[in-house]
Amino acid sequence: MGWQKHYLDKLSRFFQIRNLLLRQALAECLGTLILVMFGCGSVAQLVLSGGSHGMFLTVNFAFGFAATLGILVCGQISGGHLNPAVTFALCLLGRERWRKFPMYFLFQTIGAFFGAAIIFGMYYDALWDHPASFNVTGPDATAGIFATYPGNHLTLVNGFFDQIIGTAALIVCILAIVDPHNNPIPQGLEAFTVGFVVLVIGLSMGFNSGYAVNPARDLGPRLFTAIAGWGSEVFTQGWFLVPVFAPFLGTFIGVMIYQLMVGFHMEGEVRDRKESTEQETVRLTNVTSKDNSREAVKERNEC
Amino acid sequence: MGWQKHYLDKLSRFFQIRNLLLRQALAECLGTLILVMFGCGSVAQLVLSGGSHGMFLTVNFAFGFAATLGILVCGQISGGHLNPAVTFALCLLGRERWRKFPMYFLFQTIGAFFGAAIIFGMYYDALWDHPASFNVTGPDATAGIFATYPGNHLTLVNGFFDQIIGTAALIVCILAIVDPHNNPIPQGLEAFTVGFVVLVIGLSMGFNSGYAVNPARDLGPRLFTAIAGWGSEVFTQGWFLVPVFAPFLGTFIGVMIYQLMVGFHMEGEVRDRKESTEQETVRLTNVTSKDNSREAVKERNEC
Amino acid sequence: MGWQKHYLDKLSRFFQIRNLLLRQALAECLGTLILVMFGCGSVAQLVLSGGSHGMFLTVNFAFGFAATLGILVCGQISGGHLNPAVTFALCLLGRERWRKFPMYFLFQTIGAFFGAAIIFGMYYDALWDHPASFNVTGPDATAGIFATYPGNHLTLVNGFFDQIIGTAALIVCILAIVDPHNNPIPQGLEAFTVGFVVLVIGLSMGFNSGYAVNPARDLGPRLFTAIAGWGSEVFTQGWFLVPVFAPFLGTFIGVMIYQLMVGFHMEGEVRDRKESTEQETVRLTNVTSKDNSREAVKERNEC
Amino acid sequence: MGWQKHYLDKLSRFFQIRNLLLRQALAECLGTLILVMFGCGSVAQLVLSGGSHGMFLTVNFAFGFAATLGILVCGQISGGHLNPAVTFALCLLGRERWRKFPMYFLFQTIGAFFGAAIIFGMYYDALWDHPASFNVTGPDATAGIFATYPGNHLTLVNGFFDQIIGTAALIVCILAIVDPHNNPIPQGLEAFTVGFVVLVIGLSMGFNSGYAVNPARDLGPRLFTAIAGWGSEVFTQGWFLVPVFAPFLGTFIGVMIYQLMVGFHMEGEVRDRKESTEQETVRLTNVTSKDNSREAVKERNEC
Repeated sequence: MGWQKHYLDKLSRFFQIRNLLLRQALAECLGTLILVMFGCGSVAQLVLSGGSHGMFLTVNFAFGFAATLGILVCGQISGGHLNPAVTFALCLLGRERWRKFPMYFLFQTIGAFFGAAIIFGMYYDALWDHPASFNVTGPDATAGIFATYPGNHLTLVNGFFDQIIGTAALIVCILAIVDPHNNPIPQGLEAFTVGFVVLVIGLSMGFNSGYAVNPARDLGPRLFTAIAGWGSEVFTQGWFLVPVFAPFLGTFIGVMIYQLMVGFHMEGEVRDRKESTEQETVRLTNVTSKDNSREAVKERNEC
Repeated sequence: MGWQKHYLDKLSRFFQIRNLLLRQALAECLGTLILVMFGCGSVAQLVLSGGSHGMFLTVNFAFGFAATLGILVCGQISGGHLNPAVTFALCLLGRERWRKFPMYFLFQTIGAFFGAAIIFGMYYDALWDHPASFNVTGPDATAGIFATYPGNHLTLVNGFFDQIIGTAALIVCILAIVDPHNNPIPQGLEAFTVGFVVLVIGLSMGFNSGYAVNPARDLGPRLFTAIAGWGSEVFTQGWFLVPVFAPFLGTFIGVMIYQLMVGFHMEGEVRDRKESTEQETVRLTNVTSKDNSREAVKERNEC
Repeated sequence: MGWQKHYLDKLSRFFQIRNLLLRQALAECLGTLILVMFGCGSVAQLVLSGGSHGMFLTVNFAFGFAATLGILVCGQISGGHLNPAVTFALCLLGRERWRKFPMYFLFQTIGAFFGAAIIFGMYYDALWDHPASFNVTGPDATAGIFATYPGNHLTLVNGFFDQIIGTAALIVCILAIVDPHNNPIPQGLEAFTVGFVVLVIGLSMGFNSGYAVNPARDLGPRLFTAIAGWGSEVFTQGWFLVPVFAPFLGTFIGVMIYQLMVGFHMEGEVRDRKESTEQETVRLTNVTSKDNSREAVKERNEC
Repeated sequence: MGWQKHYLDKLSRFFQIRNLLLRQALAECLGTLILVMFGCGSVAQLVLSGGSHGMFLTVNFAFGFAATLGILVCGQISGGHLNPAVTFALCLLGRERWRKFPMYFLFQTIGAFFGAAIIFGMYYDALWDHPASFNVTGPDATAGIFATYPGNHLTLVNGFFDQIIGTAALIVCILAIVDPHNNPIPQGLEAFTVGFVVLVIGLSMGFNSGYAVNPARDLGPRLFTAIAGWGSEVFTQGWFLVPVFAPFLGTFIGVMIYQLMVGFHMEGEVRDRKESTEQETVRLTNVTSKDNSREAVKERNEC
């Protein structure tokens, strides 16, 4: 054991990264990789098995609990955003620094890219065995395993609106969960609760286009499919821009709704209480100092 | 960051509401909005996808976890009732003031109204694409996405009874969860447990008419559908009165059952213990005062 | 509010029961009522809707979470057994007194009886609307909503074995959850964990005869169906004896397995540690007393 | 009760095992038995009922929650590995001693063997009633109830890769959950979280060959089927070696990924902080000793 401990310690010292932002970005990368690996894996299982080993509910469960696991893996280090929209929301509220945003976005997208790659490798045989192996459109299309595509009934405007609402709902719930003044759940259960949010969004907002509500989760795997054999068709018709840009607008709206309905009033109450305490203190200090001066006078007189 | 903090603080001060009841009502409004948005969203997904993206189980999950999320968002501020029947039960037991009841009822209904509106907007294309877009009755009716309608087998009497039982079951479970003398679960998990209650009610009491068990959740979306294109047909046959009035009767019965079987005895035990402690204290005080007087006498004698 | 508080207090004093065993039995009654109401309700929903509003998985979820809710309602008062087999196991291990056993068994069965009655009332219209309204056997039989019946493939011997294994599995898991020396989960989550146990038993041991594993849960509703219209046919072929007697044998086996594999060794370790501490104390006391006597001698000498 | 207590105490003393490793191995045996009993039981329910009492999702739920329950039963004693790959990972990281590995592997396999045997006994009638009672291959094969077999589309190379990825994903998540420096969840919820990991792996990585990701879970039941009537055919084509050997390679990869992306940096941070504290202490000590010596000089001078 002594030899093993020594070797592990040496390895640990060799690979240790001391830059905090890089470490956080790496953790986000791994967390998003887990999210996309399990999430897209469940879509692959549903599509490639032709429904025998999955259904839409299993995809919802997988994305929800994959979010939980992704957050558990990296939450202590990077906060466990897994989603540029979440990073954006926290930057908007001044809880994270803006320079984190591009770094997190990049590494989240890289993690999503490799998560898709792992699922591609895992189901390589099944993919070739599938009748519509590398189709982007059509009833048996497999591109939808990795990135989201709009349903036949969906116009681009409604799709944009769909992504805005989905992201706003996600952000309102996440803000309630992590609000320091509105702390409803026991320490350590945030990851599970966020998982439930993702699950519920999938249960009720998944029909239009597959609830990306996450630019990195959609862009990373889409880039991978473009490289891996589906070709540039994955970018046609401009849909790919919707899950990249709409979530940020949705984030802004979600932040506003939560703050207007709940957040500002709670913050205000805390501030009011603090200020009244301060004034009280000031008044007390004045009183005390007056008392002191009177006592000083008294003492002088008594002398 | 300094500029951003300043601006956020200014916004916060501008929009802050100091009236407690209004803040609570707003929070209830947002919570009920979330409940109805996710809940009715899952019904929409089930109905509009023709079963490919949902089933009755997903609706049950969505309503259950939507209740959890709604409570998490507003629970710290307003108590997270989301349901006039719950407010009514707590008023009956003297744990909330009666004047809260109409205010909560109103804002819960408004929240439910807007929750339905969001889902209407989100699935607007899918609704138009559906063969029976704005039908209230018939096999493909879409009005059931928003409000509840009785099954073909159901008479009005049985429907009334169904809503009474469902609400009574809900209230018994909720009272057990929030009973201060019967506190079975860790602080902060109440929202999850209430979500489980809603889930189980859906799993076992959802076949008759879709388990509204909540006047606001049913009335708000029904009003919305009346405006949005389904017309006054949503009010015909008097069914709409059942989920508005039966739950309050069910609440009364639920409160009685819980109190008779569990609550009164626990309260009584706590009261008995307190009273016996008080008597003990009184007796001890008497003894002490007697001792004191005796000692005083003694001391006087010794002087 | 003053008037209301006064009235509630008067009610509370009037209905208060001071006998502890009766209160516990009433609580068990309510808990088992909730278990059977939600559990059998989900079977009713599955059978009467012809599969459109349920499937076997929803029944499993409903029984699992119904067990959780039943335990939450009565757990603080009576321990939340809901099952004579659990009471039997705790009596066997000397953790509950034997005289509780018949009282609990009786009230659990009464609770199960009324739980079935509530579901009967709730789905009365749907039951009459069903093609095989009051059939005990046959493809559309509705008696299976309330009590369990063996599958066509099952012999009585295998059915007996099935109930023994199911109950033994339940008891092993419950003993691990409530073992004071092997306390793996946070205080207050026992109810949820037991719910998971019931859920998993349903997922993997439900095909033979519907996993009663609970004499009260099966006997109470069976008695109700005999009265309510299905007639004495519910008792034919002797199957009804299996879920009443096999679970107790299964309980004995479960207790033995858990104690032999885990329990005895942990208890023994605790006992060993206590005994060695006691011996240590004895030795220390001896040493101290010797020291004392020596010092006493010394002091005497010094005098 | 006195007599019962006495007898229980006597039993407890008679059967108590004092050897720690044996006790731990027995606990692992019981835990793995529970995992395989519930897990394979759900596959049996799915296969033997022809889909009426289960689907792939129920199998995933059963394996996930069975892992939770197995860990709860034995976790306090043995750590609750239930899987030689997990034991291997903890040995690799120097958190468990290597001599535990073969002992745990053996008893986990024995537990899995008996878990399969219990399910065989429970569903004996149903198995004989099934059209393809003891078939290893073919559409109705029942051997897949107990051990895993590759899908028709799967080559051996892809299958090996599948098991490596699945186990690596499992190990990364488990390491994050149990990492002492990255402790994200409340004490006592590890079992539930590991259950979620197993559930998610089943939801997204189960299509290729049924996600064994556990040498003991696969080998034990396979040995049982070889004896119980399916014959040596269960070992043909060499597939049985994949779930025995690939998981260990996957474990190594999982440990490396977690350590490189997260673990080493957190350990390093802790070490850095400790070392800097030590240096600080050393410096302080030097300063103090210098001060002391100066004071000593001073004192000497003053004398």
